[in-house]
Amino acid sequence: MNSRPIRLALLLPAALLTATAPIIHSEEGMWTFDNPPLKLLKAKYNFVPTQEWLDHLRLSSVRLNDGGSGSFVSANGLLLTNHHVARGQLQKESTAEHDYLRDGFYAATPDQEMKSPDLEVDVLAGVRNVTERVQNSAKGITDDAQALKARDAEIAAIEKENKDRTGLRSDVISLYQGGEYWLYEYKEYTDVRLVFAPEQQAAFYGGDPDNFTYPRYDIDMALFRVYDNGKPLHTDSFLKWSARGAEPGELVFISGNPGSTERDDTVSELLVQRDVIGPAITDYLQHRLKTAQDFAAQGPEQARLVGSTIFGLQNSLKAIEGRADALADKSILAKKQADEADFRAKVAANPEWQKEYGDAWDTIAKVEDQIKPEVKGQLFRRSDSRLFTIALEIVQYVAEIRKPDGERLPQYHEAGLQSLKFEMMSPAPIPAATEKLYMSSALRLAEEKLGRDDVYVQAILQGGDTDTVVSSLVDGTRLGDPAARKALLDGGEAAVAASTDPMIEAARRVDPIVRATNKRLRDTYASVLTPAGEKLGKARFLVYGKDAYPDATFTLRLSYGTVTGYPYNGTIAPPFTTYYGLYDRAASFGDKAPFDLTAKEEAARDRLDLATPLNFVCTGDIIGGNSGSPVVNRNGELVGLIFDGNIESMAGDFVYDGSKNRAVAVHSAGMMEALRKIYGAGALADELEGKN
Amino acid sequence: MNSRPIRLALLLPAALLTATAPIIHSEEGMWTFDNPPLKLLKAKYNFVPTQEWLDHLRLSSVRLNDGGSGSFVSANGLLLTNHHVARGQLQKESTAEHDYLRDGFYAATPDQEMKSPDLEVDVLAGVRNVTERVQNSAKGITDDAQALKARDAEIAAIEKENKDRTGLRSDVISLYQGGEYWLYEYKEYTDVRLVFAPEQQAAFYGGDPDNFTYPRYDIDMALFRVYDNGKPLHTDSFLKWSARGAEPGELVFISGNPGSTERDDTVSELLVQRDVIGPAITDYLQHRLKTAQDFAAQGPEQARLVGSTIFGLQNSLKAIEGRADALADKSILAKKQADEADFRAKVAANPEWQKEYGDAWDTIAKVEDQIKPEVKGQLFRRSDSRLFTIALEIVQYVAEIRKPDGERLPQYHEAGLQSLKFEMMSPAPIPAATEKLYMSSALRLAEEKLGRDDVYVQAILQGGDTDTVVSSLVDGTRLGDPAARKALLDGGEAAVAASTDPMIEAARRVDPIVRATNKRLRDTYASVLTPAGEKLGKARFLVYGKDAYPDATFTLRLSYGTVTGYPYNGTIAPPFTTYYGLYDRAASFGDKAPFDLTAKEEAARDRLDLATPLNFVCTGDIIGGNSGSPVVNRNGELVGLIFDGNIESMAGDFVYDGSKNRAVAVHSAGMMEALRKIYGAGALADELEGKN
Repeated sequence: MNSRPIRLALLLPAALLTATAPIIHSEEGMWTFDNPPLKLLKAKYNFVPTQEWLDHLRLSSVRLNDGGSGSFVSANGLLLTNHHVARGQLQKESTAEHDYLRDGFYAATPDQEMKSPDLEVDVLAGVRNVTERVQNSAKGITDDAQALKARDAEIAAIEKENKDRTGLRSDVISLYQGGEYWLYEYKEYTDVRLVFAPEQQAAFYGGDPDNFTYPRYDIDMALFRVYDNGKPLHTDSFLKWSARGAEPGELVFISGNPGSTERDDTVSELLVQRDVIGPAITDYLQHRLKTAQDFAAQGPEQARLVGSTIFGLQNSLKAIEGRADALADKSILAKKQADEADFRAKVAANPEWQKEYGDAWDTIAKVEDQIKPEVKGQLFRRSDSRLFTIALEIVQYVAEIRKPDGERLPQYHEAGLQSLKFEMMSPAPIPAATEKLYMSSALRLAEEKLGRDDVYVQAILQGGDTDTVVSSLVDGTRLGDPAARKALLDGGEAAVAASTDPMIEAARRVDPIVRATNKRLRDTYASVLTPAGEKLGKARFLVYGKDAYPDATFTLRLSYGTVTGYPYNGTIAPPFTTYYGLYDRAASFGDKAPFDLTAKEEAARDRLDLATPLNFVCTGDIIGGNSGSPVVNRNGELVGLIFDGNIESMAGDFVYDGSKNRAVAVHSAGMMEALRKIYGAGALADELEGKN
Repeated sequence: MNSRPIRLALLLPAALLTATAPIIHSEEGMWTFDNPPLKLLKAKYNFVPTQEWLDHLRLSSVRLNDGGSGSFVSANGLLLTNHHVARGQLQKESTAEHDYLRDGFYAATPDQEMKSPDLEVDVLAGVRNVTERVQNSAKGITDDAQALKARDAEIAAIEKENKDRTGLRSDVISLYQGGEYWLYEYKEYTDVRLVFAPEQQAAFYGGDPDNFTYPRYDIDMALFRVYDNGKPLHTDSFLKWSARGAEPGELVFISGNPGSTERDDTVSELLVQRDVIGPAITDYLQHRLKTAQDFAAQGPEQARLVGSTIFGLQNSLKAIEGRADALADKSILAKKQADEADFRAKVAANPEWQKEYGDAWDTIAKVEDQIKPEVKGQLFRRSDSRLFTIALEIVQYVAEIRKPDGERLPQYHEAGLQSLKFEMMSPAPIPAATEKLYMSSALRLAEEKLGRDDVYVQAILQGGDTDTVVSSLVDGTRLGDPAARKALLDGGEAAVAASTDPMIEAARRVDPIVRATNKRLRDTYASVLTPAGEKLGKARFLVYGKDAYPDATFTLRLSYGTVTGYPYNGTIAPPFTTYYGLYDRAASFGDKAPFDLTAKEEAARDRLDLATPLNFVCTGDIIGGNSGSPVVNRNGELVGLIFDGNIESMAGDFVYDGSKNRAVAVHSAGMMEALRKIYGAGALADELEGKN
């Protein structure tokens, strides 16, 4: 399971902009497409992908705004991703009567294809190095906060210029901890229709226990079709389906969008993660999970409503526990300390480098120490309400867009507005019951952790009883209707200021608190961490050269590896599993949840070739966000679909250990077997195999 | 895999006679049948076995002199054990033409049943507490060596008296580190014929990698028939076969002979194990394994000849590595230290106890310190030659039996002679090729570790070249023929003294060295450790009461537990596996060794009910020696057959952790499915099910 785990990035954005990467181990790395590991591939596999090969794979790969990856797999815009990436859309489409999560979905004809309410798909059309322009923008400005402001303004300008010129979504991203800045331009698609999804139980077989493990037996796939101008997208940029699929020992590539890693974090940052941030996040997730589970226990419809939330929270909890275990592992920390000591010693050995970069570690360590008391406030001041989030976005939006682009809050820069508005205007229903549940729960946790007098809490509650206030906010707001949102956005600041919508009123009270906090955090911490991170990024190039990959940033990366088992449980895990194993595990647990078979799987038992590979593992280096990434062979054919990492990979945020870190994928032969023999989706299977 | 791992017991017998057992955890314990955990069973399961129930299980259980356990499973003497316990006999019966290990064996009719050359089966007929008599025998003797001699003489006298009176094999055993001594009397059977064995590959599916792990898919069973006076043994003491077999969550019992544990060892003993003995044994095993593997690489017949040896060595190596990991685990050592500190504090708190027992830990620690330099000599002075072992036994036998029973070397006491002679006179062939291989290898290792001048090495080589001397010994001896052994035994001291058989000559030269070393070790160490161990045993009863089980001693014990999975690999291991899993694992590894199917398994694929349980796990507390133990339900019916422990159980020599320590068994339904549908052994299956 590899949807993006909750990240500090969401809480303390600047704290991630630092550090250094040491020597690359074989098959380690999430490489940018402009800097693929050609030397390593040539040396180990005697295979050098051509530029054409790389371009085709890049243009066949997509990023989903729901937090995963995918690929085009037919000339008519079929898009393959994981069921668990599609899950959010399925939840939004489902009702008590039509529960697509429980029952799955198949559009046997084009007219049955079901439009996703708010799914955006991005294809990376091009990249450009803009390091010099960004770094020069702050030159000569001695005040840290002013320098950061100038840098941000320059980034916004670059993005807007490109967006205006090309019409493409344009993002400037920081790589190598600010050692480089790149402009990434994306073709966006927002008409994305569901074609096929298996039952949740078949996709997520083994449930939370089997999540992040291997051997696995999951049909974790879903197929969308991307439409352009109301018609299926016709494209040459799609991956040919391999009927044979991944074979043991073969070289494979993974093209996807790993969310974030902290492999280049300094030791001082890791220790704050371990001691302060990690435990706080665990607290928060456990609280939310309990809230949702208690609600689910009230009945089947309640369980359906919070199903996706529970799924996501369990996933995040298992991930955060894996992170905690990794940081508690003395050998991992010792390695980090040794790497950092080596880096510092090499910088110190060159007087010029030492003068320029030598103070960065101590600068970061000092800021990290100051950040500790901020964590609670940042983490627990949240509403967990979709309606409140929209309200706050509306309040901020109308104010921000009147400012020059470079002076806006980062999420309201011109280049990103199209995507932001697409999400804000989503027609997906927002059930009042769960809104109340989540918002009350979040506010009660905030009261518990920060005190009832906390200004954020009081800005919302104004001294009232939590449940009563939340009920009146949710019941009183009209923001569930996208038309109401549109009216406010169109009406601008005047309309928003005049609005008596209670959720907008609450957002107006919260807005200045959020702004003040963000400004303080940026001026105090980010303004210091950003240049310190850049120093380490530059020093790293000088010390270790340019044959390195940057930490993950939810942008397109290329990983590679071999299909191979690994030592586990005192023995060896096999390179792949088969349908035999699915029926074994079900029988072994007496067909009890979460190890039960679906009715369709049960019925298909005798039709299936049980020896067909179902899931497999490879040494490719992935992380949350890679979910749905295509796995391709040397010929660029699709041989599998990434959906998880093994339990040993959970230290992957910090280190990669090729001896036992494995990416887990659905096998192309297993998917074909499922489509044809479990789901009777022969026409779809034919399209994938290019037979129609 | 649970055949007995190599033990320090073989090297420094006295070093194991010490220590203390703390509080018993639920489902922990290898209980003697005279002291079953009735209170624990009543409290947790509301089940109290009757004396009749216990007697029936005891009399249905057997110990095999090849180092495992078993049970009677039909009124006509059918004996069920593991294939890997029967393996030694199968190897001895096999030739290049008839390879029963490779092909399996089935006697469809009684006349095809195949007599085992040297398999002895013992049934525990009765037990008697002789603590007072043994402990009193040394009273008043102040010289340690003399006291030990007196104690040994008394033990020999008790054994002989009982043997003379009952005709039964009679062993005095030390329990609770000498806190108690018991006389165990056994009915011996030596006409034991093979009825059924699957192919080695089906029995040991997954080979060395899967050994000591779970989930497993092994048909690790063999059936012998015990004959008495040339006819199948008719008995009421047999276990009824359960067609349904072990069910998840149910209470089960295991009746078998755990080899040895060191749970009551003092910390000083464990540290010598960790730092000195363990590494030396690993060295020795790796050397032997390499020798055998190099030989096996020469061709299929060579591979066949050393197959059992490689199997046993890999098993021992994995076990010793598991022990090393357990002792390297700081939390385990910390627990041991805390337990010992608690015990010592409680003894110290009572002035009388402190005076009587308080010095035992320091006494043991001092001796352990002195033992360290002896380890190498004890471990590496070995011939690894069956012929040489027989020669030495002949040389010693003729001398020892002329002495009063109480003064003999322990292995030549009157009560044990019958079993000893049965083994010495075994007609099993002893291939010259492997004799030379093993003996040369052992002597070369001894030279390397102890120096070429070592007196043991020189007593054999007399300055000659190792390979040349070994060849002339093996080629020149007539001891491969049991008649030659008999002639020497019958001829007595004179015949042995006059013998020009080169192996006898070598044994005559080695004999005084072995005697002198044994005497020195006994007089110096065992004589001190034995009373110190008794002190701790007695103190333990005073401090913790009598609700305890003694460390394992390869005598009959009762364990109990529930059939249940456990947390593993980030998820949950199922309570049982099925045939589906066998075919999954085979396909997952491309049917490559050691995960390949046999031709019979391949052919039976479509006949089998693949959901039939094959292997299962339960929380029962077992250790090497329990291999072949029956698993029975509350009704005393056979529901499974112990054959291994999971990888987490490898700390079981020292501690039991019920949360993840599991015994691994073949399921009775799985065995029945195999007999009927894979092996066409319907008549045998009918006999087991009481249908004929």
